[in-house]
Amino acid sequence: MGLNLSNFLVSKSKNKRMKEFQDLDHIAGVSISSVCANLYKDTRDDLVLFYFREGANYAAVYTQSKIISENIKWNINQRSKKVYSLLVNARNANCFTGKQGYKSLEKIAEVLSQKLNERQIQDEDNPKKIKPKEIIFGCTGTIGEVFPEDKIKNKIPELIDKIKYTQNKYIWMKAALGIMTTDTQPKMAMETCQIGNSEIKIFGIAKGSGMVQPNMATTLGYVFTDADLSNDILKKLLKKNISTTFNAITCDGDTSTNDMVCIFSTSQVKHSKINNVNDEKIKDFEIALNNVLLNLAKRVVADGEGASKFMTINVENCKSENDAKKIAFSIANSPLVKTAVAGEDPNWGRIVMAIGKSGVIINLEKLSIKFGDISIVQNGKINPNYNETDASEYMKNGNIEINVSIFNGSKKFTAYTMDLTTKYIEINSDYRS
Amino acid sequence: MGLNLSNFLVSKSKNKRMKEFQDLDHIAGVSISSVCANLYKDTRDDLVLFYFREGANYAAVYTQSKIISENIKWNINQRSKKVYSLLVNARNANCFTGKQGYKSLEKIAEVLSQKLNERQIQDEDNPKKIKPKEIIFGCTGTIGEVFPEDKIKNKIPELIDKIKYTQNKYIWMKAALGIMTTDTQPKMAMETCQIGNSEIKIFGIAKGSGMVQPNMATTLGYVFTDADLSNDILKKLLKKNISTTFNAITCDGDTSTNDMVCIFSTSQVKHSKINNVNDEKIKDFEIALNNVLLNLAKRVVADGEGASKFMTINVENCKSENDAKKIAFSIANSPLVKTAVAGEDPNWGRIVMAIGKSGVIINLEKLSIKFGDISIVQNGKINPNYNETDASEYMKNGNIEINVSIFNGSKKFTAYTMDLTTKYIEINSDYRS
Repeated sequence: MGLNLSNFLVSKSKNKRMKEFQDLDHIAGVSISSVCANLYKDTRDDLVLFYFREGANYAAVYTQSKIISENIKWNINQRSKKVYSLLVNARNANCFTGKQGYKSLEKIAEVLSQKLNERQIQDEDNPKKIKPKEIIFGCTGTIGEVFPEDKIKNKIPELIDKIKYTQNKYIWMKAALGIMTTDTQPKMAMETCQIGNSEIKIFGIAKGSGMVQPNMATTLGYVFTDADLSNDILKKLLKKNISTTFNAITCDGDTSTNDMVCIFSTSQVKHSKINNVNDEKIKDFEIALNNVLLNLAKRVVADGEGASKFMTINVENCKSENDAKKIAFSIANSPLVKTAVAGEDPNWGRIVMAIGKSGVIINLEKLSIKFGDISIVQNGKINPNYNETDASEYMKNGNIEINVSIFNGSKKFTAYTMDLTTKYIEINSDYRS
Repeated sequence: MGLNLSNFLVSKSKNKRMKEFQDLDHIAGVSISSVCANLYKDTRDDLVLFYFREGANYAAVYTQSKIISENIKWNINQRSKKVYSLLVNARNANCFTGKQGYKSLEKIAEVLSQKLNERQIQDEDNPKKIKPKEIIFGCTGTIGEVFPEDKIKNKIPELIDKIKYTQNKYIWMKAALGIMTTDTQPKMAMETCQIGNSEIKIFGIAKGSGMVQPNMATTLGYVFTDADLSNDILKKLLKKNISTTFNAITCDGDTSTNDMVCIFSTSQVKHSKINNVNDEKIKDFEIALNNVLLNLAKRVVADGEGASKFMTINVENCKSENDAKKIAFSIANSPLVKTAVAGEDPNWGRIVMAIGKSGVIINLEKLSIKFGDISIVQNGKINPNYNETDASEYMKNGNIEINVSIFNGSKKFTAYTMDLTTKYIEINSDYRS
C-alpha cells in the first residue's frame, strides 16, 4: 500500500515515534492460541482463542445493521457477569445461517467450556467451573454459507493444548493474523497508562476492510487491559470513545452484519477502585484507550481496499456534533470526492457538493474549506490568494486532510477514510471469479 | 457502452418497439435554437434556447441539496405565471459564483428579453412584451468558476436569428447534444396521448451522469407538451410522477447543486378544461408523462459513468413506500453490490448486507431475494433448489433485475442504477489531469 502509518497514528506520549507495528508483550490474565482449522483452502491460522484464566469483565458494541449474524445474537443473549473466553474464526461470517449457525455456537461453547474446565482442573489450585454462556464469539467471512461447526469443534483440543500463560509479540502477531480475512496487514495497537499509582496496559487487535473472500468489510476490534474495571465502567468508556474512533471510519459506506468491538479487563493489576466513569483517576486510562481504539481504526482505514491515500475529514464550528458528523461522512463517503483524491486533483467543487447533499443547513457566506493548511474557500468565496498549483502539490501527499468550517457553532467531528481507486473495483468485482 | 436501451425503455403502447433514439418532430408553441458560445475549447454547441412564442405554463422541481446554484435561485425567485424562454448552458454550473453569477443572469435575461421582443415585433401580429423574469435558466458544468456572462450575452443575437418556427428531429437532437457535458449519448423521449378527443404530444430531453469535465452528475430534464394545462395541474403531475422516475435513479449517490426537471405546456392544442389533477380525462396524459420521464431517467442511468450493466431494484410488500425506497436505494448505492454486478458475480450476501444497513426493520424469516426470476432466498432461507450456475449465467445479461420482497405490507418502490466499474474511477480521478 505504501501508506506510512507513522504519519497519522497517535500516542499518549507525544514524543514516541510510532512504529509500523508496536510490540505487544504479556498482559496479565490473557492467554492466546491460534490454529489452522482448514476454513480456508490453505494452511493459514483461521481460529483464535482468547482465554481469560480468571475471567474478565467486559463490554461490547455491535453492528447497527438490522440484519445481524448468529454470533452477535449469541453474544447479546449471554448476560454473564464475566467471560472466560472469546473465540474468533475467519472465513465464515455465520450470518444468514439461521438455526444451524446458532446451534453450532451452542455446541462449540459446550465443548470449549468443558475442555477449558479440564485444563483448569489440571493447572489451577482453585479451578473455576466455566459455563458455555461465559464464552463469546467473533465471526468474519462470507455470508450465507453453512457454518463449519465440526471443523471448529475438532480443533478445540489443539487450541487448548497450545495455550501458554505468558504472551509475547509473536503470539499477538499470530492472533492478529489469524482473524484477518483479506486484510493485507495485521492491526495491533498498545498504550500504557496510570490509574492512581498503578501502571496499566491496554492492548488491542483489529481486522477490517479486506474483501477478496469475505462478503463485506467486516470490522472486529478486541481490546484487553489488566485494569480492574467493572462491566458498567467498561461499557461507558467504550460507548464514549467508540464514536470518535471506530464509528468515525468508513471505507465504502457499507455496513457489516458482523461488526463488533469488545473490551476485556482482567483485573490483574490492583488499583484504587473506580466507581464513576468521570473519576479523575481514569482520565489517563481513557486517553490511552481512545488512542488504542483510534490507532486500530486508522489501521483499518489505511488497509482499506485499494487505498492509496489516507484521508482525514475535520468538520468544525457546527451547531451540533451530529451536523458535523453528517457533513464529515457525506464527504468521506462521496465517490466523487474519493476518486478526485485518488487522482490527486484538488477538486474542491466536489467538497461543496458533498456538504450540500449532507442535508445540513449552513450559511454559505461563512463556509471555509482547506486542503491541509491551504485555504481555498473563505467566507463562502474563493480565497483570492488560492493557487491551484500549491493545492495540486499538496494532493501528492499520502495523507490528505480536508478541513471544513461552518462557523455557526462550536461542535466538531473528524471522520477517517481512504481514496477510491480502480483497485477497489478490481478487488470487489473479481471476487469468486 | 453496449447497453441495449430497447430492453428497458417503456411505452404507453406496449407493442411499439422502442428505438435507440425516438424521432421528436414539431410540437406547437416550442422553438429551439442552439449555438457554440465557446464555453468549451472546441466547436460543439453549448448554449440552447427554448422559446415559447405565446408563452408556456410551467412547473419545476429542483435539487434537494442545501447548496444550490445561482440559476436555481434565479428560477425560484421568478414567480411569473408564464415563461417565454428557457436558456441552458453547459460547461459552467453557475454554482458557488455568488453575486457575479446571479447578476450575470439578470443581465442575460435583460438582453434576451429585449431581443426576443424585437423578434416578436418583427414576426407577430400581436407582439407580447416579454419581461426578464419570464425567462428561466438551466446551467450545468464545473462549480466555482466565474460565470461566462459575456460569452453568453454575445451569442444572443445569433441564437435569436436561428430560431425556426417548425422543429424537426435534427433540431431536437442538436438541443439534446447542446446540453450534454460528458454524457456519451443525447437523451430524448416522446409519447403521444389523448385528452378527451384531442391528440397531445409530450416530448422530453435530458442530460446527466457524464463527469470528465463537470464536477458532478448534474441531471437536467425538460419536458414539453402542447396540452393546455395550468401551472397548478403541471406542478401536481410533476410532483406525483417525479418520485418514481427521476427521483428513482442513482448513479453514485452524489447529489448535484444544479438538478432541475421542468415541464412546459404551450396550450396550443385545445381540449376540455382540466381543473383537477385526478380528472379521468388526464389519466392517459399522466401515463404518457410518466413514460417520458421514466425513459429519460433510464437513459441517464444507462449513460452513467462507466456503466456496463443497467440495474433495476424492485422492493415489494413493504409497510410503507418509504421503507421500500430506503431498501432499494441502500442496494442501488452500495459499492459492494455494484462491483459484484460489474464482476457478474451473483453475490447475494451483499444484497443481504445492503438490506440490513438500510435501517428498515424487517422480519428476516419472510425475506425473499431473486435475481430476475431466479429465487435465491425464500422465507429467509436459501432456496434449496438454488443453483449458482444459473445465477452466474443470469449475471451475464446487460440488464440485471434484483427483486426483494419483505412481506410485511403492500407498498413497493423501484430504483434504477448501473454497475460500478474501473472505468467510473478512471473517468472521475483523471479529471483535469
